[in-house]
Amino acid sequence: MHICSAAGYTPTRVLDNAFFQQVAGLEPEWIKERTGMETRHIAAEGENTNTMGIKAVEALVPQLPFDAEEFDLIIGASYTPYDTIFSLAHAVQHHLDIPDIQVLNVSTACSSLLNALEVAEGYMAMGKSKRALVVSAEHNTAYAHFRDKASGHLWGDGAVALALSAEALTSKDHKVLSIKTGGAATAGKASQGVLLRPWDGGLFMPNGRDVFLHAISYMSSISKEILEDNGFTVNDLSAFIPHQANMRISRNVAKELDLPIEKLVSNVDRLGNTGNAGCGIAYAKIWESLPMDALVLMAVFGGGYSYGAMLCKVGG
Amino acid sequence: MHICSAAGYTPTRVLDNAFFQQVAGLEPEWIKERTGMETRHIAAEGENTNTMGIKAVEALVPQLPFDAEEFDLIIGASYTPYDTIFSLAHAVQHHLDIPDIQVLNVSTACSSLLNALEVAEGYMAMGKSKRALVVSAEHNTAYAHFRDKASGHLWGDGAVALALSAEALTSKDHKVLSIKTGGAATAGKASQGVLLRPWDGGLFMPNGRDVFLHAISYMSSISKEILEDNGFTVNDLSAFIPHQANMRISRNVAKELDLPIEKLVSNVDRLGNTGNAGCGIAYAKIWESLPMDALVLMAVFGGGYSYGAMLCKVGG
Repeated sequence: MHICSAAGYTPTRVLDNAFFQQVAGLEPEWIKERTGMETRHIAAEGENTNTMGIKAVEALVPQLPFDAEEFDLIIGASYTPYDTIFSLAHAVQHHLDIPDIQVLNVSTACSSLLNALEVAEGYMAMGKSKRALVVSAEHNTAYAHFRDKASGHLWGDGAVALALSAEALTSKDHKVLSIKTGGAATAGKASQGVLLRPWDGGLFMPNGRDVFLHAISYMSSISKEILEDNGFTVNDLSAFIPHQANMRISRNVAKELDLPIEKLVSNVDRLGNTGNAGCGIAYAKIWESLPMDALVLMAVFGGGYSYGAMLCKVGG
Repeated sequence: MHICSAAGYTPTRVLDNAFFQQVAGLEPEWIKERTGMETRHIAAEGENTNTMGIKAVEALVPQLPFDAEEFDLIIGASYTPYDTIFSLAHAVQHHLDIPDIQVLNVSTACSSLLNALEVAEGYMAMGKSKRALVVSAEHNTAYAHFRDKASGHLWGDGAVALALSAEALTSKDHKVLSIKTGGAATAGKASQGVLLRPWDGGLFMPNGRDVFLHAISYMSSISKEILEDNGFTVNDLSAFIPHQANMRISRNVAKELDLPIEKLVSNVDRLGNTGNAGCGIAYAKIWESLPMDALVLMAVFGGGYSYGAMLCKVGG
């Protein structure tokens, strides 16, 4: 499988740390020190997971090396749905106006994007897809509570769209060398680490420290594993994109991997935690700047818990 | 791919049509005539999508032809989540206490179960799974409104678990001959047929007639297509399990297919519309009674819109 293009969308409305000082009494410097966050982009009135996903797709379509009508599979990825019936994938199909292609959604917390990419790989392995569209979107602020001192300040909104092809189409495609995912629902306080109960309170993180520690541990180990499986070392990497949850988590993973800090890709300072979309938005941002043969590693960890990694090579 | 066993769960609390006469002023006979429904089983206080899914898994485990610890993939399927972070698949992994296997959730309205089965087939095609568990659960009544005259009376709650194996394990396994799924979000009033907006009103069906007509049309055509693709006719079928939404839809599809009515499998009279779980619960119910070589066809249609069909053969 090859990734042909990637495009992100972040809403224009910005919340800075001073906002959370006002509503939750949190010190701006304390937030920055603990999370690396300075701002977050927040969905405006009328925006939601479906509209943000469509915005990312609108940005993607002009970059495609094929006609959008050639998509035969659309996979939505989100844990913050606007509509679970006319879902993200349905809304994108409707927007692109492509009748009778395969559509489905994946929802596995912050590992949803990698799960969706792995599912697309499965459809290609079955011969059921040649051109797939994965659209990831999160509207965390629809479910979070700004006054929640423990986690209300962590969340941002955003979306990303990735175009996939079974075979290489251009010399700039990124070849997916490997995807590995796993569930860790038996580890630590997985059942109580992060909660998003749509009809029973919304989004909370009652056990942030447990999430923090497991995120570092799982992202480090899955990264080492996928590199080793594919005959690479950290020295071969051009860029490492960890789940964009917290700068301290990212730096700890980089340290565990002995990764030079300049290879660490991050948007959490500007965007906050944009859920399963965060890594993809970061990937889309650096897309153009990656040189031929660059090796890129993405590693994710989600509440619940679940984790995954993807290794890609530019022009591979 | 082979289905090794199936087990359903329906909550014990029952609502009859007289209840909807009380709360919504609907005539019991009118409900029965329009939908075929006489009762629905409703989740009790403390029950939710995760707990119901686990109940189905608890019923499945004693029937398994292998140890539950051999599952290497768990896929949850639901459009009525209790927790989108500690999700259905995570909760089942946690309950079974199997560390570090693949877990993910699929959420594509009432086609979610067939999407999940197709995704499992993809993991097997990639060589990433040999024993998979698909758990489908719906808690419609968490999001629906009993006083909504248009659709409040339609919904039931329930769950089903299916065990899958890449190869046949016993002579009673059902071989999956084919799965086909598609999105129809460009058809009719797909964007407004059925809505489930967790933070914006819950579950409604503002365009029931459009859903009704497209459900008949899509389930009929996908059924004909999958039979023809596999060299069968309706006469070869032992059982036909349509999406359990409404008895009139089911009977119309049977008529379109020239299917003898005694081959039509239904639970909508007792359980109401149990969403993506409905077909699976019906399948689990007839499992033991199906003779060797029986050909079973499942066809689904979901709001959004999306559709699918699966053809299985007992001992195949």
